Amino acid sequence: MTKSPNKTLVLLRHGQSTWNLENRFTGWTDVGLSQHGHDEAVEAGRRLLHDGLKFDIAFTSVLKRAIKTLWLVLEEMDQMWIPVHRSWRLNERHYGALQGESKDEMAERVGADQVLRWRRSFDVRPPLLTEGDKRFPGDDRRYASLDPSQLPCGESLKDTIERALPYWHNTIVPAFASADTILIVAHGNTLRALNKYLNGLSDEKVVGLEVPTGEPVVYHFDHALRLQGLPTFAQSMSGCAH
Amino acid sequence: MTKSPNKTLVLLRHGQSTWNLENRFTGWTDVGLSQHGHDEAVEAGRRLLHDGLKFDIAFTSVLKRAIKTLWLVLEEMDQMWIPVHRSWRLNERHYGALQGESKDEMAERVGADQVLRWRRSFDVRPPLLTEGDKRFPGDDRRYASLDPSQLPCGESLKDTIERALPYWHNTIVPAFASADTILIVAHGNTLRALNKYLNGLSDEKVVGLEVPTGEPVVYHFDHALRLQGLPTFAQSMSGCAH
Repeated sequence: MTKSPNKTLVLLRHGQSTWNLENRFTGWTDVGLSQHGHDEAVEAGRRLLHDGLKFDIAFTSVLKRAIKTLWLVLEEMDQMWIPVHRSWRLNERHYGALQGESKDEMAERVGADQVLRWRRSFDVRPPLLTEGDKRFPGDDRRYASLDPSQLPCGESLKDTIERALPYWHNTIVPAFASADTILIVAHGNTLRALNKYLNGLSDEKVVGLEVPTGEPVVYHFDHALRLQGLPTFAQSMSGCAH
Repeated sequence: MTKSPNKTLVLLRHGQSTWNLENRFTGWTDVGLSQHGHDEAVEAGRRLLHDGLKFDIAFTSVLKRAIKTLWLVLEEMDQMWIPVHRSWRLNERHYGALQGESKDEMAERVGADQVLRWRRSFDVRPPLLTEGDKRFPGDDRRYASLDPSQLPCGESLKDTIERALPYWHNTIVPAFASADTILIVAHGNTLRALNKYLNGLSDEKVVGLEVPTGEPVVYHFDHALRLQGLPTFAQSMSGCAH
């Protein structure tokens, strides 16, 4: 007989952003949700509410597309009062000098293969920011407390995983000591990082993993944080009256 | 020559709630903002943005009318990424068995003088909740970590001040060690508590203090948290194009 799981983790990628919609490299650029992304976030909240989830604490990045998604979920669930922690370690992969560029225009300029290499390699970095670039995070006060060595000029997926996982180990795992149910709202590549760790994915597998926007994935653990069964999607509300 | 102040505190009462509008005793009842309250919060954000305030951290209660006001302010100011801490100690005064009652109906039932005594005395408690009352905060999971002795069945203004001020001394003052600019979004009576302490108001004076909804008040301190001059209102935007 399986011991009933007693720790629950929900991973949620932010709803569609305005730059997802425009098909631009976004990274640490702080763009908001599109109307569709807003609706996705509200729907995610409805589904989690329908599944009866009661969160004890939530974690998110310092980027507003994730924060707003979290707010919309918590408002829909009437759980706005739970503690929320934000960290740059949950930010999207930093896309260096590609940030702001159109993926299609870039493909025309450097070839689709090169764009694919930037987007779907494990350890290939994008073209890095050069000195004085206004996109450098060191000039943004939200990163003022970071050590200069932590400020990226462009990250590979590998780099992203290496700065995201310490947050799992040092902050989220300890939070499970007093929390039964945790919500993380983050980004495609930081959720790849958590997926890789939790599901033991290889470097090759993780680059092929697509994390859809606004789709909550539920993990169950036992009290020692051993995964219990496969992760599940929060129940779809489509077809239900709401 | 006055040394230029280097610590700033903004106190803001939440926007009008649905029960402010209905003229009901609210207390710890978790009601949302009215449309007017929503608009007040956005306008408060505009004014603080116009004044160039850059918050390092924010504090609020565990009640959604304050949390939502804070969210709207931070969104308007594009400062959604700052750390936010919620505490029951910043909650509105607990209004005991009056919570949910219409102030006008109560005045008809017990007399306007009695209602005024409940509302405008320093140490008179409202009728307390009795055992099994569904309004008892001990049954709400957001208060699960509180010691039973901390769970109110009804508070006087004096009680409210006594549980709010430890949060100022133990949490907010220490936060000024690394923060220059702090935002507190709270409630009429917890803002009275802070006002009483910061401005040295007598018990008699503080009961007469009206804290308007959605009106940010700015305090300047020196590095040792000594008040520099009188508090000011954030600049009104009325008459300005925005």
